[in-house]
Amino acid sequence: MITLPIWILIMGHCVHISYAKTPQRSTYIVHMDKSLMPSVFSTHHQWYTSTIDSLSPASLTSLEGPKSSLSSSPKLLYSYDEALHGFSAHLSPSELQMLETHPAFVTAYKDVKGQVDTTRTTDFLSLNSKSGLWPASNYGHNVVVGLIDTGVWPESRSFKDDGMAPVPSKWKGACESGQNFNGSMCNKKLVGARFFNKGFMAAEPKTKLSMNSARDIDGHGTHTSSTVAGAHVDGVSFFGYAQGTARGVAPRSRLAVYKVVWDEGCYSSDVLAAFDQAISDGVDVISISLGFGGFPLYTDPVAIGSFAAMEHGVLVSSSAGNSGPLIGTLHNGIPWALIVAAGTIDRQFSGTLSLGNGHTILGWTLFPASAVVEKVSLKYDRKISACNSSTLLSKAASNEIIICDNMGMTLDQMDKVAGSNAAAAIFISDDPIDYELIGGVSWPGIIIGSKDGRSVVQYAKSTKSAWASMQFQQTFVGSRAAPAAAFYTSRGPAPSCPGVLKPDLMAPGSQVLAAYIPSSEVARIGNNIILSSEYAMLSGTSMACPHASGVAALLRGAHPEWSPAAIRSAMMTTADPLDNTRHPIKDDGDTSKPASPLAMGSGQVDPNRALDPGLVYDATPQDYVNLLCSMNITTKQMLTIVRSKRYNCSNPSSDLNYPSFIALYDNKTKIAVKTFHRTMTNMGKGGATTYKASVIAPRGSRVVVKPQKLVFREQHEKQSYSLTIKYKSNNEEEVSFGSLVWKEVGGKHSVRSPIVVSPLVDNSFGLIPF
Amino acid sequence: MITLPIWILIMGHCVHISYAKTPQRSTYIVHMDKSLMPSVFSTHHQWYTSTIDSLSPASLTSLEGPKSSLSSSPKLLYSYDEALHGFSAHLSPSELQMLETHPAFVTAYKDVKGQVDTTRTTDFLSLNSKSGLWPASNYGHNVVVGLIDTGVWPESRSFKDDGMAPVPSKWKGACESGQNFNGSMCNKKLVGARFFNKGFMAAEPKTKLSMNSARDIDGHGTHTSSTVAGAHVDGVSFFGYAQGTARGVAPRSRLAVYKVVWDEGCYSSDVLAAFDQAISDGVDVISISLGFGGFPLYTDPVAIGSFAAMEHGVLVSSSAGNSGPLIGTLHNGIPWALIVAAGTIDRQFSGTLSLGNGHTILGWTLFPASAVVEKVSLKYDRKISACNSSTLLSKAASNEIIICDNMGMTLDQMDKVAGSNAAAAIFISDDPIDYELIGGVSWPGIIIGSKDGRSVVQYAKSTKSAWASMQFQQTFVGSRAAPAAAFYTSRGPAPSCPGVLKPDLMAPGSQVLAAYIPSSEVARIGNNIILSSEYAMLSGTSMACPHASGVAALLRGAHPEWSPAAIRSAMMTTADPLDNTRHPIKDDGDTSKPASPLAMGSGQVDPNRALDPGLVYDATPQDYVNLLCSMNITTKQMLTIVRSKRYNCSNPSSDLNYPSFIALYDNKTKIAVKTFHRTMTNMGKGGATTYKASVIAPRGSRVVVKPQKLVFREQHEKQSYSLTIKYKSNNEEEVSFGSLVWKEVGGKHSVRSPIVVSPLVDNSFGLIPF
Repeated sequence: MITLPIWILIMGHCVHISYAKTPQRSTYIVHMDKSLMPSVFSTHHQWYTSTIDSLSPASLTSLEGPKSSLSSSPKLLYSYDEALHGFSAHLSPSELQMLETHPAFVTAYKDVKGQVDTTRTTDFLSLNSKSGLWPASNYGHNVVVGLIDTGVWPESRSFKDDGMAPVPSKWKGACESGQNFNGSMCNKKLVGARFFNKGFMAAEPKTKLSMNSARDIDGHGTHTSSTVAGAHVDGVSFFGYAQGTARGVAPRSRLAVYKVVWDEGCYSSDVLAAFDQAISDGVDVISISLGFGGFPLYTDPVAIGSFAAMEHGVLVSSSAGNSGPLIGTLHNGIPWALIVAAGTIDRQFSGTLSLGNGHTILGWTLFPASAVVEKVSLKYDRKISACNSSTLLSKAASNEIIICDNMGMTLDQMDKVAGSNAAAAIFISDDPIDYELIGGVSWPGIIIGSKDGRSVVQYAKSTKSAWASMQFQQTFVGSRAAPAAAFYTSRGPAPSCPGVLKPDLMAPGSQVLAAYIPSSEVARIGNNIILSSEYAMLSGTSMACPHASGVAALLRGAHPEWSPAAIRSAMMTTADPLDNTRHPIKDDGDTSKPASPLAMGSGQVDPNRALDPGLVYDATPQDYVNLLCSMNITTKQMLTIVRSKRYNCSNPSSDLNYPSFIALYDNKTKIAVKTFHRTMTNMGKGGATTYKASVIAPRGSRVVVKPQKLVFREQHEKQSYSLTIKYKSNNEEEVSFGSLVWKEVGGKHSVRSPIVVSPLVDNSFGLIPF
Repeated sequence: MITLPIWILIMGHCVHISYAKTPQRSTYIVHMDKSLMPSVFSTHHQWYTSTIDSLSPASLTSLEGPKSSLSSSPKLLYSYDEALHGFSAHLSPSELQMLETHPAFVTAYKDVKGQVDTTRTTDFLSLNSKSGLWPASNYGHNVVVGLIDTGVWPESRSFKDDGMAPVPSKWKGACESGQNFNGSMCNKKLVGARFFNKGFMAAEPKTKLSMNSARDIDGHGTHTSSTVAGAHVDGVSFFGYAQGTARGVAPRSRLAVYKVVWDEGCYSSDVLAAFDQAISDGVDVISISLGFGGFPLYTDPVAIGSFAAMEHGVLVSSSAGNSGPLIGTLHNGIPWALIVAAGTIDRQFSGTLSLGNGHTILGWTLFPASAVVEKVSLKYDRKISACNSSTLLSKAASNEIIICDNMGMTLDQMDKVAGSNAAAAIFISDDPIDYELIGGVSWPGIIIGSKDGRSVVQYAKSTKSAWASMQFQQTFVGSRAAPAAAFYTSRGPAPSCPGVLKPDLMAPGSQVLAAYIPSSEVARIGNNIILSSEYAMLSGTSMACPHASGVAALLRGAHPEWSPAAIRSAMMTTADPLDNTRHPIKDDGDTSKPASPLAMGSGQVDPNRALDPGLVYDATPQDYVNLLCSMNITTKQMLTIVRSKRYNCSNPSSDLNYPSFIALYDNKTKIAVKTFHRTMTNMGKGGATTYKASVIAPRGSRVVVKPQKLVFREQHEKQSYSLTIKYKSNNEEEVSFGSLVWKEVGGKHSVRSPIVVSPLVDNSFGLIPF
């Protein structure tokens, strides 16, 4: 064994951890250069264990003295071999110092806590059993999707395996027993369940785990899992809304669940362990609806885990985050993963307001019960119509429908009315965000627009005998322009890698109905009555991500030979920039202006078109390494991600072969000039074909594509082109966008890439290494 | 035409109608002796029209003078020909006087308003698809059941006709169009829909009909219809309770709906019109869950309509009423109909109370939402625990579970708590009536018994950190002794004919889940939020009646040749006097003592046993006439019911060949001595067989049966016996009961009849004609 001198390291990027006076241990992720493993060790685990043992108290006594509180040994949490080479361990600062002198030491960074991307939501992908991706992939039945999340509620009807074929023989995963979870709970649908909490327990030793197993007690993982691959379940609704059949995007693919989130916290050490295991178990796609904001790629566990997954042909799909609508708020800015923005869908949860004068108004509601409001007296009272005073509301309203003015604070008004005696309330608002009904509707009430509001107020004032009726639990499909970029979806450019446009595409994220855990709040009536539901309506990029993961799983099933980059390219170049009214998709976070690619990437994922994209932009692991080489990072930081020295930096290039373009400008110069080089592979079954370029240049720019025509003589042939953008503006902070479409001459394929010009976004981490 | 002198008649039995100063018209049911119809009239309708025309203002001017407000003609509402011979008409007192001088006039009485028998309820008949009555009757597919009720909601899933055979060709009914109801709304399940409101409109001309068609806007008729013959509907529940498949007792029989109830009122003229039409349309069974209390048989429209139905081979099943538990409260005391009492079932709607000390208690609840009450602080506060003061409750309780003492007023306590801030409440009660949850549970809460209550209070007092959790929406089957006679079910003896034991039998009536109308209150949350449901839980003899009607329909399908009396006999003699614990059925209205036949008749209907009763007590129309002849009624009163002179009174007899025995005593003498003569018909397929009598004499009586053995040589053979009861008691108002069972020697049949000794019950009408 090797003993080495000890010195001090100061970590750059930590979560808030309170230090006690005695030297406490923290969890570190330690990357090692495995090529230096002495041959005396037969496994990497032996080597890492031995390395940790060498840091034992005996070795340290001389330094910390006999009064040291660290009488125990430093503890190895996980050995990693797939997602990274290295381990995580619970170490004191001095133990870490000692470790850093190890010749194979690459890097170490503190275990950090990530956030789950949840608000509330729904889905409208045009998958069907007659044609397109579902039948082409046999609904994904040979594909295993790994979910890194809060675990799973195995008893949910969405995880029944009725009619499913035996588990693919390639599958090497396991169904681990734990608290309230035994190994027999898996089946042909839920093929694996594991849990990882060593990092969490080390960081928060005083927190008693509420559920020490893969069982989900949060709901998030059950929701995302069933969104990816839930079985068909009839007769589902959310308190009477969205009544119908629930099913995942890839309803016959298999789920392997890796629980890493504990009491709403997750640590990078556990996330890396999950990636490590999922790759080793043989998943085909990883869906991970969580992220670690504010870290460079080389300490971001999703980035690190995704790189290894990508090398193994596993596409990782992750969420953009819920920090919109400002630009530069995206997490998971990972060039080798698919990053998903959240959009709205064309479904409206409605209530009908019928007035005594014969008028009928369709509004928005999610009141979670079959409330009967029939011919109830309607009052408009100027004294209370701000609906912002519980005191006034409790006095003024009784057995009446009250009207709340458009004050730009509907959520607060709803809250106040729920504590009143009003039989019901009408809320006036023109904010599309209010129509998303986030936070639910906890008292009988309907939101209507201000135009309708004026006529309701006029009628209420016109007669003392004014009355109204309300009907709840109505669901309309196709009744509004959709998708729109959700106001909350995080926007690019990605702080960790702004030179690659992120997010990649958009998927349904708002008001998604999927399986949930029992006895957990999903709605309220009044202030006191909390309601649960077998299926819950959630919104967030966490809900968008599993939709894209499901599509990726189907594509993997239909095209087992495609690389993760090819799958992503197919999804991006066929994504739809138009909404169901055939106008450009709007941005709910920007007064309904057209959404920029910084909000929605290439557009709304279009599963059936992705099945046959014509051309793809492929990328190899070395391509991503070339990108990393172009960044201002050290060799050790590089090794943190790429793990092995088989890659080289002989050809550094920020010009990744990516299906989208972003040119960044400095707010001082307001000038951007950039040339991109791209190579496309012909995937068309027809063989010989020709594509012509069609460009819409971003405002304030000139775009030149050379050549304008690409002739492919056979399938799998590659052809290259260059795209140069020159941008000059007078406006600060202007985001300008357009597109390049390669149209097949005489054919049906068209291959679209968004082009964005964006200002450089200052981020507080000072880490942007492009 | 005949004009006749005018004189005055004073009616004996009227509803409360306020008379204005000017002579107002009322509706009268007029019975006529059709044998006297002049041959000049080709139809009875012509004759009646002509009779009414003869009462026109022209004829009356001399009497009422030129200032009479009755410038219009008297109006014929309905002509009747099946249920009775006669008509109903809107007549002034003087017009009526004139009519009474008509030679064919039999009787006339005022149209009266009946009550619908509704509280709230459920069902547990052991029908199954493998054996017994369902397969034997092919689920009643050739049988049409007429429902005389509040109409129907044709869109209910319970009335879908998927998979049903074409409508039997014998069916002559129609699907009448009306307000929000068009003739195409009928199908192979709902084969007829008609409505009758001339009587209602004549009596209440100022009331605007809310729905002038067969459409149900009350819910009662939709509930009873679907209970008789609702189709299989999956995925039904009452706010998460009783989750499962809904279906009627005779799920393939056809429904013909006759709406007679308007805004919760129904008039005899309309009811008679419905009977008339249903008989003419060709229904096989009539189910009528309503009654007219306090009338003698000869002015009771259900009695009159039922007699004609019986003559046509149509069994009429009706409800005993909800005026229990006192004896002598039964309406519909009709010897030629089947009168049904209501029982409880073995299903319990539950909540689980989990205490912080590890104890778990199963209680009763119907809180209508998936409320989450998890580890909420539990308080026992002597100041508020009576839970009878809204003021105290609103102050004391907030975000706590409160405990309400056993005060014998749980319903009121529930009401008070619903207006409080308490997170939830525990109600302590030992009253089985509270466990029926009538009135629902409108705030998160659970009822528990006082033994459990003591341990909960003890725990709450033991520590300030006491907490509890609650789980709602639990349903347990087989968890309690059932059936019991419901506390509300009306008891015999029947005032209108106490010498025939009524009710005849008991069927499930408490907490019955069946189809309902939308947007109608079936539950509440708090004080203000009213909830509706596609399926509602109702209790009452109204719910028991259609269960028996459904069994009768199945028997009619299995034995098309049986008379109504034979069907009723089969149902009565095979009814079960024991509950599911094999103890005598208890009476929830009498501190859970054994239920007397005055509460439950012969016992709980047992459909599968009724298929093969061995012997039956049959009765012909003349047998019922003989009974009427023995009553103290006039020839015209007799004709009111029997309509034609083909019957005679040459053999008056109070000793109807009935499958039960009742001996009545005077409270002064406390002595009863009576001999009954009975004749049974052998229905056994085996032919020759022997039965032996087995008697349990009512307490205080001696019973002698002669002979003790009856030998049948072949099928359809009749054998007679006599039963003499001698009773002498020291106790006033004692109801004493036993039974006679004829057991087949070496065979499986046993034919049971209850024997009751009951005091004469004083009824306020002074009309008991036995």
